[in-house]
Amino acid sequence: MEKITVNIPGSVSEIFVGREWETAGKLIPQSGVLIITDQNVHSIYGNRFPEFPVLIVQPGEQSKKLEVIGQLAERLLDAGIDRSGFLLGIGGGVVCDITGFLASVYMRGIRFGYVSTTLLSQVDASTGGKNGVNLGDSKNILGCFRQPEFVICDPVMLYTLSDEEYFSGLAELIKTGIIGDRLLFEKIEQNYNAIIGRDPELLSSLVSMAVNFKAAVVTEDERESGLRRILNFGHTFGHAIELSSSLAHGYAVASGMELAARFSCNKGLISVTDLERITGMLKSFNLLRDYHIPGDQVGRLILHDKKKAGGDIYFVLTEGIGKAVVEKMPAGTIVDFYLKYKAGK
Amino acid sequence: MEKITVNIPGSVSEIFVGREWETAGKLIPQSGVLIITDQNVHSIYGNRFPEFPVLIVQPGEQSKKLEVIGQLAERLLDAGIDRSGFLLGIGGGVVCDITGFLASVYMRGIRFGYVSTTLLSQVDASTGGKNGVNLGDSKNILGCFRQPEFVICDPVMLYTLSDEEYFSGLAELIKTGIIGDRLLFEKIEQNYNAIIGRDPELLSSLVSMAVNFKAAVVTEDERESGLRRILNFGHTFGHAIELSSSLAHGYAVASGMELAARFSCNKGLISVTDLERITGMLKSFNLLRDYHIPGDQVGRLILHDKKKAGGDIYFVLTEGIGKAVVEKMPAGTIVDFYLKYKAGK
Repeated sequence: MEKITVNIPGSVSEIFVGREWETAGKLIPQSGVLIITDQNVHSIYGNRFPEFPVLIVQPGEQSKKLEVIGQLAERLLDAGIDRSGFLLGIGGGVVCDITGFLASVYMRGIRFGYVSTTLLSQVDASTGGKNGVNLGDSKNILGCFRQPEFVICDPVMLYTLSDEEYFSGLAELIKTGIIGDRLLFEKIEQNYNAIIGRDPELLSSLVSMAVNFKAAVVTEDERESGLRRILNFGHTFGHAIELSSSLAHGYAVASGMELAARFSCNKGLISVTDLERITGMLKSFNLLRDYHIPGDQVGRLILHDKKKAGGDIYFVLTEGIGKAVVEKMPAGTIVDFYLKYKAGK
Repeated sequence: MEKITVNIPGSVSEIFVGREWETAGKLIPQSGVLIITDQNVHSIYGNRFPEFPVLIVQPGEQSKKLEVIGQLAERLLDAGIDRSGFLLGIGGGVVCDITGFLASVYMRGIRFGYVSTTLLSQVDASTGGKNGVNLGDSKNILGCFRQPEFVICDPVMLYTLSDEEYFSGLAELIKTGIIGDRLLFEKIEQNYNAIIGRDPELLSSLVSMAVNFKAAVVTEDERESGLRRILNFGHTFGHAIELSSSLAHGYAVASGMELAARFSCNKGLISVTDLERITGMLKSFNLLRDYHIPGDQVGRLILHDKKKAGGDIYFVLTEGIGKAVVEKMPAGTIVDFYLKYKAGK
């Protein structure tokens, strides 16, 4: 078991990788706790939850909306949860995002922690303190930066994920390798079979590497005013793909990473060899699926990505496996690249 | 003009008392600004607003709800407001609460400032960084602590308030005198006519005293884990009265202060003379109106006040004019006091 600490002025967040999730009960208060989860997680693990009231949301992105926050808040009030209350989110990114946002605004902020049940949330969503809900088409438009007190990442829980959920998370692991940890990238390259077999020991080690990297980035730049932007590698196109296709987040990001890597190669930032290693890995795990962004909508979909500032976009490129660089560029430049690339295919 | 600085780790908020509101344009960015106001304020002052898009909400408490936050956020998205955007709230407590909450969660936090147009918001609501919306009957259940970059309190704007709005604000001024500033209390006692006449110079001076006191309290205890609780003097009963009657906030708090002062006197904390000075002042401004809390609902209404922790309530008493003290007590004790007092009337 590894404990990784995210130390940000005013808050300390502890990420336990490889810890048995059933020990969550030891990290929460003895009263005033409410658990938030989704139907899928509850049907598998609900009988071993700590003994507190449970609120169950629908699985999936459709629960990430303001109405759900309002409904859950009513339930918290009914349950008598006050400022000394504690929310425990047990689930993937959606459950963690909802739990974190609700805890951030309920009575102007109560305590919270997560048991992170998907690879995607273990690697990415549950570390760093971002939470939020969508507004129509636009993702995470309303939310906060606020660190959970703890996150438990138990690799054994990953056995019960669907293939789609599991490999969707793998895409974010690969992203971390590309932008910041060459050793992680290589470890993924070298352990194909153990990854396919969901070996818990290997997964603990990979998740630890990714969380350590993300924790370091977030500690330096909690509010995404600089360094943290590199975590959006593959996400500008990824979000556009996610909005215009029915691909799961990780698959959309995988294609977004392919595009960002090609863009980096076009600009002479990485070699063709590195580009091929990246696309090769994405293909080997069958992460590159068909998608279609209507040509006349690329700009709109990219600009709705909220990482933009003014008319420009902070686009994340790679300068080689393990190193990312952020370039501020007009949205038009990105659209042009995409249209040329698609025309040449 | 006086500038009062609220200095909290990670944020600085500047309160300008006695500054002409039309100078707000000098404190905001030159682009990416959106103004939030209500119909009343807009009809009086709208033609002198800085030249930026304006979103107008319905006046009154009914706008303080989550749906309105969602609707405004959609409008911000449509207007192209991104992370570098700025929200300027021009209005009273409701407009400031909505603007502050929206700015706190929109894209996980953008910049904001207020032009505070009512006495209540100049004295209380716009200093201190609390914002939020109601949930059904329950006030301010969803919100954040986040300081506005600036607040402009222009006493000339107070001329256009209805009597109800004006005297509602006066109740909070009196509250500040009772809990923390004997000189402020005496200045109110000694300037009855100038207060009735809304003399801008006197009002500037009174608002400055109140803001200075509140700024000091908030600087010490932003998140209301201790000292800040004294600001709730009169509010435990006040909220219950507000919920069960149709009284405006300040009038409800005035009656809440009378009850809290009587409770303090019953407990031997203040003399009958001080009690009479307090009730005398409240009566002289005609702040004590009829109200009725159904006997069987007192407990429920008090317990929905979110300042409780566990089954207990932090009740604010006074130990003499200019000095407040917080006592944690069971809700039942407070209900008993109220029922006995009402029975004896």
